[in-house]
Amino acid sequence: MIISIVGGTGNLGKGLAVRLALAGYKVVVGSRMVEKAEEKAKEYSKLCGCKIEGLSNDKAIDICDVAILTIPWKSALDFVKNYRDSLSKKIVISPIVPMVKEGEFVYKPLNGSMAESIAKILGNKVVSAFQNIPAKRFSNLNETPEFDVIVCGDNEEAKAVVMEIVNSIERLRALDGGPLSNSRIVESLTPFLINLASRNGLKELGVKFV
Amino acid sequence: MIISIVGGTGNLGKGLAVRLALAGYKVVVGSRMVEKAEEKAKEYSKLCGCKIEGLSNDKAIDICDVAILTIPWKSALDFVKNYRDSLSKKIVISPIVPMVKEGEFVYKPLNGSMAESIAKILGNKVVSAFQNIPAKRFSNLNETPEFDVIVCGDNEEAKAVVMEIVNSIERLRALDGGPLSNSRIVESLTPFLINLASRNGLKELGVKFV
Ligand SMILES: C[C@@H](OP(=O)(O)OC[C@@H](O)[C@@H](O)[C@@H](O)Cn1c2nc(=O)[nH]c(=O)c-2cc2ccc(O)cc21)C(=O)N[C@@H](CCC(=O)N[C@@H](CCC(=O)O)C(=O)O)C(=O)O
Ligand SMILES: C[C@@H](OP(=O)(O)OC[C@@H](O)[C@@H](O)[C@@H](O)Cn1c2nc(=O)[nH]c(=O)c-2cc2ccc(O)cc21)C(=O)N[C@@H](CCC(=O)N[C@@H](CCC(=O)O)C(=O)O)C(=O)O
Ligand SMILES: NC(=O)c1ccc[n+]([C@@H]2O[C@H](COP(=O)([O-])OP(=O)(O)OC[C@H]3O[C@@H](n4cnc5c(N)ncnc54)[C@H](OP(=O)(O)O)[C@@H]3O)[C@@H](O)[C@H]2O)c1
Ligand SMILES: NC(=O)c1ccc[n+]([C@@H]2O[C@H](COP(=O)([O-])OP(=O)(O)OC[C@H]3O[C@@H](n4cnc5c(N)ncnc54)[C@H](OP(=O)(O)O)[C@@H]3O)[C@@H](O)[C@H]2O)c1
Repeated sequence: MIISIVGGTGNLGKGLAVRLALAGYKVVVGSRMVEKAEEKAKEYSKLCGCKIEGLSNDKAIDICDVAILTIPWKSALDFVKNYRDSLSKKIVISPIVPMVKEGEFVYKPLNGSMAESIAKILGNKVVSAFQNIPAKRFSNLNETPEFDVIVCGDNEEAKAVVMEIVNSIERLRALDGGPLSNSRIVESLTPFLINLASRNGLKELGVKFV
Repeated sequence: MIISIVGGTGNLGKGLAVRLALAGYKVVVGSRMVEKAEEKAKEYSKLCGCKIEGLSNDKAIDICDVAILTIPWKSALDFVKNYRDSLSKKIVISPIVPMVKEGEFVYKPLNGSMAESIAKILGNKVVSAFQNIPAKRFSNLNETPEFDVIVCGDNEEAKAVVMEIVNSIERLRALDGGPLSNSRIVESLTPFLINLASRNGLKELGVKFV
Protein backbone atom coordinates (compact mmCIF):
# COMPACT_ATOMS: atom_id res chain seq x y z
CA MET A 1 0.00 0.00 0.00
CA ILE A 2 1.34 3.43 -0.96
CA ILE A 3 0.58 6.30 1.40
CA SER A 4 1.19 9.80 0.07
CA ILE A 5 1.57 12.68 2.44
CA VAL A 6 0.36 15.69 0.49
CA GLY A 7 2.16 18.79 1.76
CA GLY A 8 4.29 16.30 3.66
CA THR A 9 7.15 18.81 3.91
CA GLY A 10 5.68 20.46 7.01
CA ASN A 11 5.46 19.66 10.72
CA LEU A 12 2.83 16.95 10.79
CA GLY A 13 3.97 15.46 7.46
CA LYS A 14 7.42 14.80 8.87
CA GLY A 15 6.18 12.74 11.79
CA LEU A 16 3.72 10.79 9.69
CA ALA A 17 6.28 10.10 6.96
CA VAL A 18 8.96 8.71 9.23
CA ARG A 19 6.62 6.74 11.47
CA LEU A 20 4.62 5.21 8.61
CA ALA A 21 7.83 4.28 6.81
CA LEU A 22 9.07 2.67 10.03
CA ALA A 23 5.78 0.75 10.18
CA GLY A 24 6.60 -0.72 6.78
CA TYR A 25 4.44 1.32 4.42
CA LYS A 26 5.70 2.70 1.12
CA VAL A 27 5.61 6.42 1.84
CA VAL A 28 5.67 9.33 -0.62
CA VAL A 29 6.16 12.93 0.47
CA GLY A 30 4.33 15.39 -1.79
CA SER A 31 5.02 19.08 -2.24
CA ARG A 32 4.04 21.90 -4.58
CA MET A 33 7.74 21.98 -5.49
CA VAL A 34 9.33 18.72 -6.54
CA GLU A 35 12.82 19.78 -5.38
CA LYS A 36 11.49 20.51 -1.89
CA ALA A 37 9.78 17.11 -1.84
CA GLU A 38 12.99 15.37 -2.86
CA GLU A 39 15.05 17.24 -0.31
CA LYS A 40 12.63 16.50 2.54
CA ALA A 41 12.27 12.86 1.46
CA LYS A 42 16.04 12.53 1.69
CA GLU A 43 16.11 14.11 5.15
CA TYR A 44 13.28 11.88 6.42
CA SER A 45 14.83 8.75 4.87
CA LYS A 46 18.02 9.43 6.78
CA LEU A 47 16.06 10.02 9.98
CA CYS A 48 14.26 6.68 9.90
CA GLY A 49 16.71 4.61 7.88
CA CYS A 50 13.99 3.76 5.34
CA LYS A 51 13.45 4.77 1.71
CA ILE A 52 10.91 7.61 1.49
CA GLU A 53 10.22 9.07 -1.95
CA GLY A 54 9.65 12.75 -2.80
CA LEU A 55 7.30 13.76 -5.63
CA SER A 56 5.15 16.66 -6.76
CA ASN A 57 1.72 16.64 -5.09
CA ASP A 58 0.20 15.73 -8.50
CA LYS A 59 2.27 12.58 -8.87
CA ALA A 60 2.07 11.73 -5.16
CA ILE A 61 -1.72 11.72 -5.40
CA ASP A 62 -1.84 9.73 -8.65
CA ILE A 63 0.45 7.00 -7.36
CA CYS A 64 -1.11 6.44 -3.91
CA ASP A 65 -3.80 4.30 -2.35
CA VAL A 66 -4.22 6.58 0.64
CA ALA A 67 -3.57 10.35 0.69
CA ILE A 68 -3.06 12.26 3.92
CA LEU A 69 -3.68 16.00 3.46
CA THR A 70 -1.17 17.72 5.73
CA ILE A 71 -1.73 21.21 4.36
CA PRO A 72 -2.91 24.40 6.10
CA TRP A 73 -6.68 24.60 6.60
CA LYS A 74 -6.94 27.92 4.78
CA SER A 75 -5.82 26.37 1.50
CA ALA A 76 -7.44 22.97 1.98
CA LEU A 77 -10.77 23.42 0.18
CA ASP A 78 -9.26 25.15 -2.87
CA PHE A 79 -6.63 22.44 -3.01
CA VAL A 80 -9.20 19.67 -2.82
CA LYS A 81 -11.32 21.29 -5.56
CA ASN A 82 -8.25 21.46 -7.82
CA TYR A 83 -7.48 17.78 -7.28
CA ARG A 84 -11.06 16.56 -7.15
CA ASP A 85 -10.74 14.04 -10.01
CA SER A 86 -7.66 12.28 -8.73
CA LEU A 87 -8.37 12.55 -4.99
CA SER A 88 -11.95 11.32 -5.17
CA LYS A 89 -10.69 7.87 -6.22
CA LYS A 90 -8.50 7.52 -3.12
CA ILE A 91 -8.97 7.08 0.58
CA VAL A 92 -8.29 10.60 1.85
CA ILE A 93 -7.33 11.32 5.45
CA SER A 94 -8.01 14.79 6.88
CA PRO A 95 -5.96 15.74 9.96
CA ILE A 96 -6.90 19.36 9.30
CA VAL A 97 -8.07 21.68 12.07
CA PRO A 98 -9.60 25.02 11.09
CA MET A 99 -8.75 27.38 13.92
CA VAL A 100 -7.56 30.91 14.48
CA LYS A 101 -5.77 32.64 17.31
CA GLU A 102 -8.01 35.26 18.91
CA GLY A 103 -6.16 35.60 22.20
CA GLU A 104 -6.72 31.88 22.71
CA PHE A 105 -7.21 29.45 19.84
CA VAL A 106 -10.77 29.29 18.55
CA TYR A 107 -12.28 26.58 16.37
CA LYS A 108 -13.61 27.92 13.05
CA PRO A 109 -15.38 25.20 11.12
CA LEU A 110 -16.85 26.20 7.75
CA ASN A 111 -19.94 24.05 7.89
CA GLY A 112 -19.90 21.23 10.37
CA SER A 113 -16.22 20.39 10.18
CA MET A 114 -13.30 20.57 7.77
CA ALA A 115 -13.57 16.82 7.17
CA GLU A 116 -17.24 17.11 6.17
CA SER A 117 -16.47 20.10 3.91
CA ILE A 118 -13.84 18.01 2.15
CA ALA A 119 -16.21 15.04 1.85
CA LYS A 120 -18.80 17.28 0.20
CA ILE A 121 -16.23 17.76 -2.59
CA LEU A 122 -14.58 14.33 -2.70
CA GLY A 123 -17.28 11.88 -1.65
CA ASN A 124 -17.46 9.36 1.13
CA LYS A 125 -13.96 7.87 1.25
CA VAL A 126 -12.85 10.83 3.35
CA VAL A 127 -11.81 9.81 6.86
CA SER A 128 -10.61 12.13 9.63
CA ALA A 129 -7.72 11.26 11.96
CA PHE A 130 -4.59 12.67 13.65
CA GLN A 131 -6.10 16.10 14.50
CA ASN A 132 -5.07 15.85 18.17
CA ILE A 133 -1.47 14.74 17.61
CA PRO A 134 1.16 17.37 18.53
CA ALA A 135 3.29 17.38 15.39
CA LYS A 136 6.67 18.39 16.78
CA ARG A 137 6.68 15.79 19.54
CA PHE A 138 5.37 13.20 17.12
CA SER A 139 8.19 13.82 14.64
CA ASN A 140 10.81 13.42 17.36
CA LEU A 141 11.78 9.76 17.19
CA ASN A 142 13.51 9.96 20.56
CA GLU A 143 10.10 10.19 22.16
CA THR A 144 7.27 7.73 21.54
CA PRO A 145 4.28 8.93 23.51
CA GLU A 146 1.08 6.90 23.76
CA PHE A 147 -1.66 8.81 22.00
CA ASP A 148 -5.18 7.86 21.01
CA VAL A 149 -6.28 8.73 17.49
CA ILE A 150 -10.01 9.08 16.95
CA VAL A 151 -10.99 7.98 13.45
CA CYS A 152 -14.27 9.21 11.96
CA GLY A 153 -15.80 8.36 8.61
CA ASP A 154 -18.96 7.31 6.80
CA ASN A 155 -17.40 4.59 4.63
CA GLU A 156 -16.74 1.69 6.97
CA GLU A 157 -14.23 0.04 4.65
CA ALA A 158 -12.16 3.22 4.31
CA LYS A 159 -12.35 3.79 8.06
CA ALA A 160 -11.10 0.26 8.74
CA VAL A 161 -8.11 0.84 6.45
CA VAL A 162 -7.27 4.08 8.26
CA MET A 163 -7.62 2.47 11.69
CA GLU A 164 -5.20 -0.24 10.59
CA ILE A 165 -2.74 2.42 9.42
CA VAL A 166 -3.02 4.25 12.76
CA ASN A 167 -2.56 1.07 14.76
CA SER A 168 0.55 0.20 12.75
CA ILE A 169 2.31 3.19 14.29
CA GLU A 170 4.03 2.32 17.53
CA ARG A 171 2.02 3.27 20.62
CA LEU A 172 -0.80 4.96 18.75
CA ARG A 173 -4.23 3.47 19.33
CA ALA A 174 -7.03 3.99 16.82
CA LEU A 175 -10.51 4.46 18.26
CA ASP A 176 -13.60 4.34 16.08
CA GLY A 177 -15.05 7.84 16.42
CA GLY A 178 -18.23 7.06 14.50
CA PRO A 179 -19.58 9.00 11.52
CA LEU A 180 -17.68 11.79 9.78
CA SER A 181 -20.00 14.33 11.42
CA ASN A 182 -18.26 13.54 14.73
CA SER A 183 -15.11 15.10 13.26
CA ARG A 184 -16.33 18.46 14.53
CA ILE A 185 -15.89 17.26 18.10
CA VAL A 186 -12.42 15.88 17.39
CA GLU A 187 -11.30 18.95 15.44
CA SER A 188 -12.62 21.28 18.15
CA LEU A 189 -10.65 19.35 20.76
CA THR A 190 -7.42 20.66 19.23
CA PRO A 191 -7.74 24.37 20.04
CA PHE A 192 -9.05 23.33 23.46
CA LEU A 193 -5.93 21.18 23.96
CA ILE A 194 -3.57 23.93 22.89
CA ASN A 195 -5.27 26.48 25.18
CA LEU A 196 -5.26 23.97 28.04
CA ALA A 197 -1.55 23.41 27.57
CA SER A 198 -0.63 27.07 27.53
CA ARG A 199 -2.88 27.85 30.50
CA ASN A 200 -1.24 25.12 32.57
CA GLY A 201 2.38 25.57 31.61
CA LEU A 202 2.37 22.40 29.52
CA LYS A 203 3.30 21.88 25.88
CA GLU A 204 2.30 19.83 22.87
CA LEU A 205 -0.35 17.74 24.57
CA GLY A 206 -2.09 14.75 23.05
CA VAL A 207 -5.09 12.81 24.35
CA LYS A 208 -5.39 9.36 25.84
CA PHE A 209 -8.62 7.76 26.99
CA VAL A 210 -7.87 5.74 30.11
CA MET B 1 -12.78 22.75 55.29
CA ILE B 2 -16.14 20.98 55.07
CA ILE B 3 -17.17 19.57 51.71
CA SER B 4 -20.79 18.56 51.33
CA ILE B 5 -21.82 16.21 48.59
CA VAL B 6 -25.39 17.14 47.81
CA GLY B 7 -27.23 14.08 46.51
CA GLY B 8 -24.12 12.24 47.61
CA THR B 9 -26.02 8.96 47.91
CA GLY B 10 -25.61 8.16 44.19
CA ASN B 11 -22.85 6.87 41.94
CA LEU B 12 -20.58 9.88 41.68
CA GLY B 13 -21.25 10.98 45.24
CA LYS B 14 -19.92 7.70 46.58
CA GLY B 15 -16.54 8.02 44.86
CA LEU B 16 -16.15 11.66 45.80
CA ALA B 17 -17.15 11.05 49.42
CA VAL B 18 -14.71 8.23 50.07
CA ARG B 19 -11.81 9.74 48.15
CA LEU B 20 -12.18 13.22 49.65
CA ALA B 21 -12.44 11.71 53.13
CA LEU B 22 -9.28 9.71 52.41
CA ALA B 23 -7.62 12.97 51.34
CA GLY B 24 -8.35 14.35 54.79
CA TYR B 25 -11.37 16.58 54.22
CA LYS B 26 -14.37 16.66 56.52
CA VAL B 27 -17.02 15.17 54.22
CA VAL B 28 -20.80 15.35 54.55
CA VAL B 29 -23.16 13.27 52.42
CA GLY B 30 -26.45 15.05 51.76
CA SER B 31 -29.75 13.50 50.71
CA ARG B 32 -33.39 14.51 50.42
CA MET B 33 -33.98 11.87 53.10
CA VAL B 34 -31.90 12.11 56.25
CA GLU B 35 -32.13 8.34 56.92
CA LYS B 36 -30.73 7.56 53.49
CA ALA B 37 -27.90 10.04 54.08
CA GLU B 38 -27.08 8.44 57.41
CA GLU B 39 -27.16 4.94 55.96
CA LYS B 40 -24.92 5.85 53.02
CA ALA B 41 -22.55 7.81 55.25
CA LYS B 42 -22.16 4.72 57.40
CA GLU B 43 -21.48 2.53 54.36
CA TYR B 44 -18.92 4.98 52.95
CA SER B 45 -17.24 5.44 56.33
CA LYS B 46 -16.72 1.71 56.53
CA LEU B 47 -15.37 1.62 52.99
CA CYS B 48 -12.66 4.22 53.57
CA GLY B 49 -12.12 3.82 57.28
CA CYS B 50 -12.87 7.51 57.88
CA LYS B 51 -15.77 9.34 59.55
CA ILE B 52 -18.22 10.60 56.92
CA GLU B 53 -21.38 12.33 58.17
CA GLY B 54 -24.88 11.98 56.69
CA LEU B 55 -27.31 14.93 56.79
CA SER B 56 -30.34 16.30 54.98
CA ASN B 57 -29.37 18.34 51.92
CA ASP B 58 -30.53 21.50 53.77
CA LYS B 59 -28.18 20.98 56.67
CA ALA B 60 -25.38 19.68 54.46
CA ILE B 61 -25.49 22.90 52.47
CA ASP B 62 -25.69 25.16 55.51
CA ILE B 63 -22.72 23.56 57.24
CA CYS B 64 -20.30 23.40 54.29
CA ASP B 65 -17.65 25.57 52.70
CA VAL B 66 -17.84 23.79 49.37
CA ALA B 67 -20.89 22.01 47.94
CA ILE B 68 -20.63 19.45 45.14
CA LEU B 69 -23.95 18.98 43.35
CA THR B 70 -24.10 15.30 42.44
CA ILE B 71 -27.73 15.27 41.41
CA PRO B 72 -29.36 14.40 38.06
CA TRP B 73 -29.23 17.19 35.48
CA LYS B 74 -33.00 17.20 35.01
CA SER B 75 -33.60 18.32 38.58
CA ALA B 76 -30.52 20.52 38.93
CA LEU B 77 -31.93 23.96 38.05
CA ASP B 78 -35.08 23.57 40.16
CA PHE B 79 -32.94 22.36 43.03
CA VAL B 80 -30.56 25.29 42.74
CA LYS B 81 -33.43 27.78 42.63
CA ASN B 82 -34.86 26.26 45.83
CA TYR B 83 -31.52 26.55 47.62
CA ARG B 84 -30.45 29.84 46.06
CA ASP B 85 -30.00 31.72 49.35
CA SER B 86 -27.83 29.16 51.07
CA LEU B 87 -25.92 27.91 48.01
CA SER B 88 -25.00 31.34 46.67
CA LYS B 89 -22.78 31.88 49.73
CA LYS B 90 -20.72 28.76 49.02
CA ILE B 91 -18.26 27.56 46.46
CA VAL B 92 -20.43 25.27 44.35
CA ILE B 93 -18.99 22.55 42.12
CA SER B 94 -21.01 21.33 39.13
CA PRO B 95 -20.04 17.90 37.79
CA ILE B 96 -23.39 17.79 36.00
CA VAL B 97 -23.73 16.71 32.37
CA PRO B 98 -27.03 17.36 30.60
CA MET B 99 -27.35 14.57 28.07
CA VAL B 100 -29.94 12.18 26.70
CA LYS B 101 -29.75 8.83 24.99
CA GLU B 102 -31.01 9.09 21.41
CA GLY B 103 -29.41 5.90 20.11
CA GLU B 104 -26.05 7.32 21.16
CA PHE B 105 -25.70 9.86 23.96
CA VAL B 106 -26.30 13.44 22.88
CA TYR B 107 -25.30 16.59 24.76
CA LYS B 108 -28.29 18.81 25.63
CA PRO B 109 -27.16 22.05 27.21
CA LEU B 110 -29.87 24.51 28.16
CA ASN B 111 -28.04 27.67 27.32
CA GLY B 112 -24.32 27.39 27.00
CA SER B 113 -23.73 24.73 29.62
CA MET B 114 -25.24 23.40 32.82
CA ALA B 115 -22.50 25.11 34.82
CA GLU B 116 -23.31 28.50 33.27
CA SER B 117 -27.04 27.97 33.84
CA ILE B 118 -26.33 27.31 37.51
CA ALA B 119 -24.05 30.34 37.76
CA LYS B 120 -26.84 32.52 36.36
CA ILE B 121 -28.83 31.57 39.47
CA LEU B 122 -26.07 31.36 42.10
CA GLY B 123 -23.45 33.87 41.00
CA ASN B 124 -19.80 33.54 40.20
CA LYS B 125 -18.52 31.09 42.82
CA VAL B 126 -19.76 28.24 40.63
CA VAL B 127 -16.93 26.06 39.32
CA SER B 128 -17.25 23.04 37.05
CA ALA B 129 -15.22 19.84 37.53
CA PHE B 130 -15.43 16.01 37.50
CA GLN B 131 -17.76 15.76 34.46
CA ASN B 132 -15.47 13.27 32.69
CA ILE B 133 -14.88 10.93 35.64
CA PRO B 134 -16.52 7.50 35.29
CA ALA B 135 -18.31 7.20 38.62
CA LYS B 136 -18.35 3.45 39.12
CA ARG B 137 -14.65 2.99 38.48
CA PHE B 138 -13.92 6.05 40.58
CA SER B 139 -15.81 4.70 43.57
CA ASN B 140 -13.96 1.39 43.40
CA LEU B 141 -11.06 1.85 45.82
CA ASN B 142 -9.30 -1.22 44.43
CA GLU B 143 -8.57 0.77 41.31
CA THR B 144 -6.90 4.17 41.26
CA PRO B 145 -6.75 5.31 37.66
CA GLU B 146 -4.94 8.48 36.62
CA PHE B 147 -7.51 10.94 35.35
CA ASP B 148 -7.29 14.60 34.45
CA VAL B 149 -10.00 16.87 35.78
CA ILE B 150 -10.60 20.09 33.87
CA VAL B 151 -11.67 22.88 36.19
CA CYS B 152 -13.53 25.89 34.75
CA GLY B 153 -14.71 29.00 36.54
CA ASP B 154 -14.88 32.77 36.47
CA ASN B 155 -13.89 33.38 40.09
CA GLU B 156 -10.16 32.68 40.24
CA GLU B 157 -10.14 32.23 44.02
CA ALA B 158 -12.95 29.67 43.94
CA LYS B 159 -11.29 27.90 41.03
CA ALA B 160 -8.00 27.67 42.93
CA VAL B 161 -9.79 26.09 45.92
CA VAL B 162 -11.42 23.52 43.65
CA MET B 163 -8.15 22.73 41.88
CA GLU B 164 -6.56 22.11 45.26
CA ILE B 165 -9.41 19.78 46.22
CA VAL B 166 -9.02 17.86 42.95
CA ASN B 167 -5.26 17.57 43.36
CA SER B 168 -5.69 16.25 46.89
CA ILE B 169 -7.29 13.11 45.45
CA GLU B 170 -4.72 10.45 44.66
CA ARG B 171 -3.73 10.35 40.99
CA LEU B 172 -6.19 12.99 39.84
CA ARG B 173 -4.63 16.02 38.19
CA ALA B 174 -6.49 19.34 38.05
CA LEU B 175 -6.05 21.38 34.88
CA ASP B 176 -7.18 24.98 34.64
CA GLY B 177 -9.86 24.88 31.94
CA GLY B 178 -10.31 28.64 31.79
CA PRO B 179 -13.59 30.53 32.14
CA LEU B 180 -16.87 28.88 33.08
CA SER B 181 -18.02 29.19 29.46
CA ASN B 182 -15.50 26.47 28.59
CA SER B 183 -17.63 24.07 30.66
CA ARG B 184 -19.67 23.40 27.53
CA ILE B 185 -16.65 21.74 25.92
CA VAL B 186 -15.93 19.67 29.02
CA GLU B 187 -19.56 18.68 29.52
CA SER B 188 -19.93 17.73 25.85
CA LEU B 189 -16.87 15.51 26.10
CA THR B 190 -18.82 13.15 28.37
CA PRO B 191 -21.41 11.83 25.89
CA PHE B 192 -18.60 11.66 23.33
CA LEU B 193 -16.55 9.54 25.78
CA ILE B 194 -19.43 7.21 26.56
CA ASN B 195 -20.21 6.72 22.86
CA LEU B 196 -16.53 6.17 22.10
CA ALA B 197 -16.33 3.53 24.79
CA SER B 198 -19.37 1.60 23.63
CA ARG B 199 -18.32 1.82 19.96
CA ASN B 200 -14.89 0.39 20.78
CA GLY B 201 -15.82 -2.30 23.28
CA LEU B 202 -14.41 -0.29 26.18
CA LYS B 203 -16.06 0.83 29.41
CA GLU B 204 -16.07 3.72 31.84
CA LEU B 205 -13.36 5.78 30.16
CA GLY B 206 -11.78 8.88 31.59
CA VAL B 207 -9.45 11.36 29.93
CA LYS B 208 -5.78 12.03 30.36
CA PHE B 209 -3.79 14.67 28.49
CA VAL B 210 -0.35 13.25 27.76
C1 LIG C 1 4.88 27.93 22.05
C2 LIG C 1 5.59 27.12 20.98
O1 LIG C 1 5.47 27.62 19.72
P1 LIG C 1 5.53 26.71 18.45
O2 LIG C 1 6.80 25.91 18.43
O3 LIG C 1 5.28 27.62 17.30
O4 LIG C 1 4.36 25.66 18.59
C3 LIG C 1 3.06 26.06 18.93
C4 LIG C 1 2.10 25.26 18.11
O5 LIG C 1 2.15 25.63 16.76
C5 LIG C 1 2.42 23.82 18.21
O6 LIG C 1 2.31 23.43 19.56
C6 LIG C 1 1.43 23.00 17.37
O7 LIG C 1 1.79 21.64 17.44
C7 LIG C 1 0.03 23.22 17.89
N1 LIG C 1 -0.94 22.25 17.35
C8 LIG C 1 -1.50 22.53 16.11
N2 LIG C 1 -1.15 23.69 15.47
C9 LIG C 1 -1.69 23.98 14.28
O8 LIG C 1 -1.37 25.04 13.72
N3 LIG C 1 -2.61 23.16 13.69
C10 LIG C 1 -3.01 22.01 14.28
O9 LIG C 1 -3.84 21.30 13.73
C11 LIG C 1 -2.43 21.66 15.55
C12 LIG C 1 -2.79 20.48 16.23
C13 LIG C 1 -2.26 20.23 17.49
C14 LIG C 1 -2.65 19.09 18.22
C15 LIG C 1 -2.15 18.87 19.49
C16 LIG C 1 -1.27 19.79 20.05
O10 LIG C 1 -0.80 19.60 21.28
C17 LIG C 1 -0.84 20.90 19.34
C18 LIG C 1 -1.33 21.14 18.05
C19 LIG C 1 6.93 26.70 21.30
O11 LIG C 1 7.10 25.61 21.77
N4 LIG C 1 7.92 27.56 20.99
C20 LIG C 1 9.31 27.25 21.05
C21 LIG C 1 10.07 28.54 20.66
C22 LIG C 1 9.50 29.20 19.44
C23 LIG C 1 10.04 28.63 18.13
O12 LIG C 1 9.74 29.12 17.04
N5 LIG C 1 10.86 27.58 18.18
C24 LIG C 1 11.51 26.96 17.03
C25 LIG C 1 12.91 26.56 17.40
C26 LIG C 1 13.71 27.69 17.98
C27 LIG C 1 14.05 27.45 19.45
O13 LIG C 1 13.69 26.38 20.04
O14 LIG C 1 14.66 28.31 20.03
C28 LIG C 1 10.83 25.67 16.61
O15 LIG C 1 10.23 25.00 17.49
O16 LIG C 1 10.96 25.31 15.40
C29 LIG C 1 9.73 26.83 22.43
O17 LIG C 1 9.13 27.26 23.45
O18 LIG C 1 10.69 26.02 22.49
C1 LIG D 1 -23.15 -0.66 30.14
C2 LIG D 1 -23.12 -0.48 31.62
O1 LIG D 1 -24.25 0.06 32.16
P1 LIG D 1 -24.25 0.92 33.50
O2 LIG D 1 -23.60 0.17 34.60
O3 LIG D 1 -25.65 1.37 33.67
O4 LIG D 1 -23.32 2.15 33.19
C3 LIG D 1 -23.46 2.93 32.04
C4 LIG D 1 -23.25 4.37 32.40
O5 LIG D 1 -24.31 4.85 33.15
C5 LIG D 1 -22.00 4.54 33.18
O6 LIG D 1 -20.94 4.11 32.35
C6 LIG D 1 -21.81 5.99 33.57
O7 LIG D 1 -20.65 6.09 34.35
C7 LIG D 1 -21.68 6.82 32.32
N1 LIG D 1 -21.21 8.20 32.59
C8 LIG D 1 -22.14 9.14 32.96
N2 LIG D 1 -23.44 8.78 33.06
C9 LIG D 1 -24.36 9.69 33.40
O8 LIG D 1 -25.54 9.35 33.47
N3 LIG D 1 -24.02 10.98 33.68
C10 LIG D 1 -22.73 11.40 33.60
O9 LIG D 1 -22.47 12.56 33.83
C11 LIG D 1 -21.73 10.46 33.24
C12 LIG D 1 -20.37 10.80 33.13
C13 LIG D 1 -19.46 9.85 32.71
C14 LIG D 1 -18.10 10.20 32.51
C15 LIG D 1 -17.19 9.27 32.03
C16 LIG D 1 -17.64 7.99 31.74
O10 LIG D 1 -16.78 7.09 31.25
C17 LIG D 1 -18.95 7.61 31.94
C18 LIG D 1 -19.88 8.55 32.41
C19 LIG D 1 -22.60 -1.57 32.41
O11 LIG D 1 -21.44 -1.56 32.69
N4 LIG D 1 -23.48 -2.51 32.79
C20 LIG D 1 -23.20 -3.57 33.67
C21 LIG D 1 -24.47 -4.44 33.79
C22 LIG D 1 -25.71 -3.61 34.02
C23 LIG D 1 -25.93 -3.27 35.48
O12 LIG D 1 -26.91 -2.65 35.83
N5 LIG D 1 -25.03 -3.66 36.37
C24 LIG D 1 -25.14 -3.46 37.80
C25 LIG D 1 -24.56 -4.67 38.50
C26 LIG D 1 -25.15 -5.96 38.04
C27 LIG D 1 -24.15 -6.80 37.35
O13 LIG D 1 -22.95 -6.46 37.22
O14 LIG D 1 -24.54 -7.87 36.91
C28 LIG D 1 -24.32 -2.29 38.29
O15 LIG D 1 -23.26 -1.97 37.65
O16 LIG D 1 -24.69 -1.74 39.36
C29 LIG D 1 -22.07 -4.44 33.20
O17 LIG D 1 -21.86 -4.57 31.96
O18 LIG D 1 -21.36 -4.98 34.08
N1 LIG E 1 1.14 21.14 13.66
C1 LIG E 1 0.49 20.27 14.37
O1 LIG E 1 0.79 20.01 15.54
C2 LIG E 1 -0.70 19.55 13.76
C3 LIG E 1 -1.27 18.49 14.47
C4 LIG E 1 -2.40 17.85 13.97
C5 LIG E 1 -2.94 18.28 12.76
N2 LIG E 1 -2.38 19.31 12.08
C6 LIG E 1 -2.99 19.74 10.81
O2 LIG E 1 -2.18 19.26 9.76
C7 LIG E 1 -2.10 20.22 8.71
C8 LIG E 1 -0.64 20.55 8.47
O3 LIG E 1 -0.10 21.12 9.62
P1 LIG E 1 1.44 21.51 9.68
O4 LIG E 1 1.71 22.09 11.00
O5 LIG E 1 2.23 20.34 9.19
O6 LIG E 1 1.46 22.68 8.57
P2 LIG E 1 2.67 23.45 7.89
O7 LIG E 1 3.96 22.84 8.34
O8 LIG E 1 2.44 24.88 8.12
O9 LIG E 1 2.38 23.18 6.32
C9 LIG E 1 2.45 21.91 5.74
C10 LIG E 1 2.71 22.06 4.24
O10 LIG E 1 1.58 22.58 3.55
C11 LIG E 1 2.04 23.05 2.28
N3 LIG E 1 1.31 24.26 1.90
C12 LIG E 1 1.40 25.49 2.45
N4 LIG E 1 0.55 26.35 1.82
C13 LIG E 1 -0.08 25.63 0.86
C14 LIG E 1 -1.06 25.95 -0.14
N5 LIG E 1 -1.58 27.18 -0.24
N6 LIG E 1 -1.47 24.96 -0.97
C15 LIG E 1 -0.97 23.72 -0.86
N7 LIG E 1 -0.04 23.36 0.04
C16 LIG E 1 0.39 24.31 0.91
C17 LIG E 1 3.54 23.31 2.42
O11 LIG E 1 4.21 22.35 1.60
P3 LIG E 1 4.98 22.75 0.26
O12 LIG E 1 5.46 24.15 0.39
O13 LIG E 1 6.09 21.75 0.25
O14 LIG E 1 3.98 22.54 -0.84
C18 LIG E 1 3.81 23.01 3.89
O15 LIG E 1 5.06 22.43 4.11
C19 LIG E 1 -2.90 21.43 9.16
O16 LIG E 1 -4.14 21.42 8.51
C20 LIG E 1 -3.06 21.23 10.65
O17 LIG E 1 -4.31 21.72 11.10
C21 LIG E 1 -1.26 19.93 12.55
N1 LIG F 1 -22.40 8.56 36.81
C1 LIG F 1 -21.26 9.07 36.36
O1 LIG F 1 -20.39 8.34 35.86
C2 LIG F 1 -21.01 10.54 36.43
C3 LIG F 1 -19.74 11.02 36.13
C4 LIG F 1 -19.49 12.39 36.12
C5 LIG F 1 -20.53 13.26 36.42
N2 LIG F 1 -21.76 12.79 36.71
C6 LIG F 1 -22.84 13.74 37.03
O2 LIG F 1 -23.05 13.72 38.43
C7 LIG F 1 -24.44 13.84 38.74
C8 LIG F 1 -24.86 12.66 39.56
O3 LIG F 1 -24.67 11.48 38.82
P1 LIG F 1 -24.95 10.08 39.51
O4 LIG F 1 -24.68 9.04 38.49
O5 LIG F 1 -24.27 10.03 40.82
O6 LIG F 1 -26.54 10.21 39.70
P2 LIG F 1 -27.55 9.28 40.49
O7 LIG F 1 -26.82 8.21 41.19
O8 LIG F 1 -28.63 8.90 39.53
O9 LIG F 1 -28.24 10.32 41.50
C9 LIG F 1 -27.54 10.97 42.53
C10 LIG F 1 -28.49 11.40 43.62
O10 LIG F 1 -29.31 12.47 43.20
C11 LIG F 1 -30.42 12.55 44.11
N3 LIG F 1 -31.63 12.95 43.39
C12 LIG F 1 -32.33 12.23 42.48
N4 LIG F 1 -33.38 12.93 42.03
C13 LIG F 1 -33.35 14.14 42.66
C14 LIG F 1 -34.17 15.30 42.62
N5 LIG F 1 -35.26 15.38 41.83
N6 LIG F 1 -33.83 16.34 43.42
C15 LIG F 1 -32.75 16.28 44.22
N7 LIG F 1 -31.95 15.21 44.31
C16 LIG F 1 -32.24 14.15 43.53
C17 LIG F 1 -30.56 11.17 44.74
O11 LIG F 1 -30.24 11.33 46.11
P3 LIG F 1 -31.33 11.21 47.30
O12 LIG F 1 -32.41 10.29 46.81
O13 LIG F 1 -30.52 10.61 48.40
O14 LIG F 1 -31.77 12.60 47.55
C18 LIG F 1 -29.49 10.37 44.06
O15 LIG F 1 -28.86 9.41 44.87
C19 LIG F 1 -25.18 13.91 37.40
O16 LIG F 1 -25.53 15.23 37.13
C20 LIG F 1 -24.17 13.40 36.39
O17 LIG F 1 -24.31 14.06 35.13
C21 LIG F 1 -22.02 11.44 36.75
